[in-house]
Amino acid sequence: MNAKETIALYKDRIDSRLRKFLSSRVQRAKRVSPRAAEMMQHILEFNMRGGKRIRPILVVFGYKAAGGKDEPAILDAAIAVELMEGYLLIHDDIMDQDELRRGYLTMHRIFENRSRERYQTEDHSRFGESMAIIAGDIAAVMGSEAILGSDFPAERKLVAVDKFNRAVVNTCFGQLLDLESVLEPSITEDDVRRLHTLKTAVYTIEAPLHIGAVLAGATDKELKVLSNYAIPLGRAFQIQDDILGLFGSQKKIGKPVGSDIREGKRTFLIIKALERAKTTDRRFLQACLGHKDITEEDVARVQKIVTDTGSLEYSQREVRSLISESLEVIRESRLRPEGRDFLIGLADFLLSREH
Amino acid sequence: MNAKETIALYKDRIDSRLRKFLSSRVQRAKRVSPRAAEMMQHILEFNMRGGKRIRPILVVFGYKAAGGKDEPAILDAAIAVELMEGYLLIHDDIMDQDELRRGYLTMHRIFENRSRERYQTEDHSRFGESMAIIAGDIAAVMGSEAILGSDFPAERKLVAVDKFNRAVVNTCFGQLLDLESVLEPSITEDDVRRLHTLKTAVYTIEAPLHIGAVLAGATDKELKVLSNYAIPLGRAFQIQDDILGLFGSQKKIGKPVGSDIREGKRTFLIIKALERAKTTDRRFLQACLGHKDITEEDVARVQKIVTDTGSLEYSQREVRSLISESLEVIRESRLRPEGRDFLIGLADFLLSREH
Repeated sequence: MNAKETIALYKDRIDSRLRKFLSSRVQRAKRVSPRAAEMMQHILEFNMRGGKRIRPILVVFGYKAAGGKDEPAILDAAIAVELMEGYLLIHDDIMDQDELRRGYLTMHRIFENRSRERYQTEDHSRFGESMAIIAGDIAAVMGSEAILGSDFPAERKLVAVDKFNRAVVNTCFGQLLDLESVLEPSITEDDVRRLHTLKTAVYTIEAPLHIGAVLAGATDKELKVLSNYAIPLGRAFQIQDDILGLFGSQKKIGKPVGSDIREGKRTFLIIKALERAKTTDRRFLQACLGHKDITEEDVARVQKIVTDTGSLEYSQREVRSLISESLEVIRESRLRPEGRDFLIGLADFLLSREH
Repeated sequence: MNAKETIALYKDRIDSRLRKFLSSRVQRAKRVSPRAAEMMQHILEFNMRGGKRIRPILVVFGYKAAGGKDEPAILDAAIAVELMEGYLLIHDDIMDQDELRRGYLTMHRIFENRSRERYQTEDHSRFGESMAIIAGDIAAVMGSEAILGSDFPAERKLVAVDKFNRAVVNTCFGQLLDLESVLEPSITEDDVRRLHTLKTAVYTIEAPLHIGAVLAGATDKELKVLSNYAIPLGRAFQIQDDILGLFGSQKKIGKPVGSDIREGKRTFLIIKALERAKTTDRRFLQACLGHKDITEEDVARVQKIVTDTGSLEYSQREVRSLISESLEVIRESRLRPEGRDFLIGLADFLLSREH
């Protein structure tokens, strides 16, 4: 079975655990109040909208790589990182004032609309945001509850919850740098690299692998190997995401090409281009950043500057070099083949993502 | 030592643990980025502004009541509930759009001002709220980290974190009902009672006592006794708070008399008065609820209606009866005197709070 097939298989398993867990929480909330149950139902639906479930799948294979054998137990714990993702998305959507998430309304918009239907108030949008802050806070707790409720020794669960907590804090730090980077004119390549490490590498790859591995009783050496695999892979993944965001097709990436430019995000690609561009081009790039009304022609000119300065090629080379680094680490490791082989396949798979 | 003196003594001990814990987190954040450290410093200052520290003190005495002897260890764990309080206040202040908290700026206002000083953006207030959402999210995690890092057996810490998590979720449910109650014209006394149970009784009294008790290895029977003490006491505390909010002095209660009326809160006191008032008075009460610009004369007329309908007396009787219930439970219990005596003193102390 290749990585793509494995991902599809485990996505189904994760989905079914997640639904079961959240349904039980809807039932529990019914005993508190109909309004509490309604909130929990919204959280259930938000989490069941989809997503590739890569993070919980990494928990499963981090566990297997460190010698874990109890698949039902690790599936129960793995949903923790998906609940974490749901919680962070609910709060991020408020911060970014987004309307849609995975093709449906964001949480604050759902409650804003409900307020319009039910209540007479001057500020439906405030009510919507308040309810979404609460929804995120509830979802956050359920993440660590999933680990605490899983069938592993207490000592291991404590370490796993500790890893989980640190991932949340680091992701919050990443989000904070992200918010500031949009406003801060002097942000450097180093800052962006740190931000990517926090927001993608640690959060998406390293933390899930570690949570799974410690539940299998991994040694410090095994955790170190997983980190050395995870960090370059996560960084590669983020840079490639930036490339797809500027050079991909809207259909593949699910949002308009150039959205990062409109949001003012100083991606790796943009920072390199700013460094190398001639004065007029640099001024043009700077003028585009954060402007919501730039045209398709503007985006085409940004693409040309990014290509002509060599920033695109530099970034693509960086992606390949980072993925090679990950592959070398994981191939040479003594992790169990039940987990290791999937991690090798995953790096290959991520590298081959289409534009 | 009476309850008041004990509270003062343990407040100092809690303050010093809290400062030590948060300072270590500022140091840890410095290794991530100066911006992360700056955020953590704001969280430290927010938490050190004061507050009576009743919740962590209840953790300590719940622990002693269940036979716990290791005071340094329980102080380390007890700060968890104070961090929880800080986190919930940061988020609540966004929801309520409050300007001040404990005499200083609320977290979203701090970051809004910082944005004005540093950045050129159209929406400083959005930036401030986003940063405050993140600040709350970080503070939330630190609460469970304080328990996980304390020196108790793993099994007990797991149960304590579980209690902690449930308290957060229940408080979120309470906050949700609170937000809806302001808008919902048909809210009943039962709904308000449920809301008080969630927001005050469970959160302020029962959860801290239980967290302490389970860290001492309490039996289910001991937990039950603590609940039977906590729930009526918490409800009494809330009703008395409502009375003070309408009949107290601004100096004692720290906010203008009648703030609950202006915010549209349907307190126990108001619901009883609405039930019993004549049509004209009922209409007047309803017209005042949620109106920010009501005068001192309006508040005086509300006070008169609440008094004349007997709602004030009914509420005061309810407070006394609930506190008697708590005292009876705790006096007849077999909990250890090291904890029990303080809990008896605390109920007496809360009953005697001045207007």
